[in-house]
Amino acid sequence: MKKYEVAKIILANKPSVPVNTTVQVFAPTNIALCKYWGKRDDELNLPVTSSLSVAIPDKGAQVTLHTRSDKDIISINGQIVAENSSVYSRATAFIDLFRQKNSCFLQIEYSLNIPMSAGLASSACSFAALTKALNELFAWQLPEKSLSILARLGSGSAARSIWSNFVEWHAGTRADGMDSYAESLPYQWPELCLGILILSDKEKSLSSREAMKRCVNSSALYASWPDQVDHDMKLLHEALANKDFDSMGSTAEANALAMHAVTLASRPPICFSSPETIAVWQKIWALRASGLKLYFTQDAGPNLILLFLGKDIPEILNAFPTITICRR
Amino acid sequence: MKKYEVAKIILANKPSVPVNTTVQVFAPTNIALCKYWGKRDDELNLPVTSSLSVAIPDKGAQVTLHTRSDKDIISINGQIVAENSSVYSRATAFIDLFRQKNSCFLQIEYSLNIPMSAGLASSACSFAALTKALNELFAWQLPEKSLSILARLGSGSAARSIWSNFVEWHAGTRADGMDSYAESLPYQWPELCLGILILSDKEKSLSSREAMKRCVNSSALYASWPDQVDHDMKLLHEALANKDFDSMGSTAEANALAMHAVTLASRPPICFSSPETIAVWQKIWALRASGLKLYFTQDAGPNLILLFLGKDIPEILNAFPTITICRR
Repeated sequence: MKKYEVAKIILANKPSVPVNTTVQVFAPTNIALCKYWGKRDDELNLPVTSSLSVAIPDKGAQVTLHTRSDKDIISINGQIVAENSSVYSRATAFIDLFRQKNSCFLQIEYSLNIPMSAGLASSACSFAALTKALNELFAWQLPEKSLSILARLGSGSAARSIWSNFVEWHAGTRADGMDSYAESLPYQWPELCLGILILSDKEKSLSSREAMKRCVNSSALYASWPDQVDHDMKLLHEALANKDFDSMGSTAEANALAMHAVTLASRPPICFSSPETIAVWQKIWALRASGLKLYFTQDAGPNLILLFLGKDIPEILNAFPTITICRR
Repeated sequence: MKKYEVAKIILANKPSVPVNTTVQVFAPTNIALCKYWGKRDDELNLPVTSSLSVAIPDKGAQVTLHTRSDKDIISINGQIVAENSSVYSRATAFIDLFRQKNSCFLQIEYSLNIPMSAGLASSACSFAALTKALNELFAWQLPEKSLSILARLGSGSAARSIWSNFVEWHAGTRADGMDSYAESLPYQWPELCLGILILSDKEKSLSSREAMKRCVNSSALYASWPDQVDHDMKLLHEALANKDFDSMGSTAEANALAMHAVTLASRPPICFSSPETIAVWQKIWALRASGLKLYFTQDAGPNLILLFLGKDIPEILNAFPTITICRR
């Protein structure tokens, strides 16, 4: 099935020309506590497994759309994006799913307060924000479930960035992906804090998309990944329901390490961790051994997201002076 | 089945009191190109999978045995080993398998030219040398297959250090382990070189034995490891038969990374790599991308063994001035 067929089903009887001329929307980045790693359908970004994330409400992408009559223009943090770049082609191909040919063009201004392509889900929040912005521009008035499905067509984990709290993205089993969407979970845990530790803001040499594909196709360990996820999803739901910090943290950390492990066993190998990453792992393990309640998770890059409780912020700041503490 | 029962079968009708008073024997360390990782029997050190190694003929353990009448004394590189240490208790428990109670005591002098407990198979060559030394001391005149089985009772990979070239250790299927021994492979490849890169000679905080056990019991990825080994053993036999350096190197490197991957996914996680290890991985990958034929393997520690061809020694020495190039 093709993306435009999914869009057609979801947008049946909805406007395909803009109703508004300018909209501005924000979507938060999301940090998976149980990772999305591997697709069952490359075209529709359908995942092999479910995943579970927590949003960082004040970090993400703001998208401003203005209608134009000549051509699409995209900027990120004020810098115009080249028309032959993958960011440009992915964004315009996404919009093409929804607009009548040559009916309208857009000026898309992204404003991100996280680094791009550094394993911090910048494409997730960008596509989620773009989807929500299009929903307003065209006045589709779609429910969030539908927005999640559409955002997924742009970037898999964008399905999760439609919400601002704990989120589960259901893998689903249907070929058309209509059962593969994210939804908000009922857990509340304001004491849970996240901290972003940027160890490198250079762009990755290998995209998540390419890494995932090579991993699924060549890592003999990938066969065990779905069982790992089943196991961890159960533990995470329990831990979040009970506010069991050690269980949540140890499961999230181990799940991330299992993802990096499966990926390391790709052929040729893929190692997202830098020497600095390993040094921080070791520092975190040493701090934990000394009694500090501290865990980490890591996406497809060298940077780390630290997980801790609000009461420990002073100690965390002392140990990691460059950390960005995120409000939730 | 217990170790002493295995020893009893193998040593039926063999002397159990020393025939000689002093012997001196050397056993080389061995570097697995396809790793031994996980036991099907903890008591007899029976492995889940077969493994394949290459010996480093000039690096390893020399053992000198002198008979004594009072008690066992062990020294390593001239330093007396404490009687309450695990090295002492493992070695004396091993000798107890073969001697009549209180019939003889031994002075065991180990001389190692590799660091201990740094992931360089120091216990493998130590137990292989001790086994060969006991064979001479007691004048058992055992065939190498039997020596391999006995050495395995001391330390799993010691089964492979009985020989000095390419070696396969057959996993076997029998509960008594009589089909789990190593044997020499017919491949000759003098151009193949190994280089030891010591990044830390500190003792590991977690022994291979404990790491392996935690990994088998808790890593969801371990279920995929035997398939990985089956795949890699076939590739390695072909590569060694054809002297296909790229195939041998890429398979050995990927197999090592898969072992570290499976281990990283243990719960709690186990990471043998240090920041320096990752930096050298990256350096090796960059050198390879620039055309140098260079791969690595890594055992249960932060140190690396580089694999390259004799013709590239000048370039290797230039890139890694602290490397120890091993003769084969």
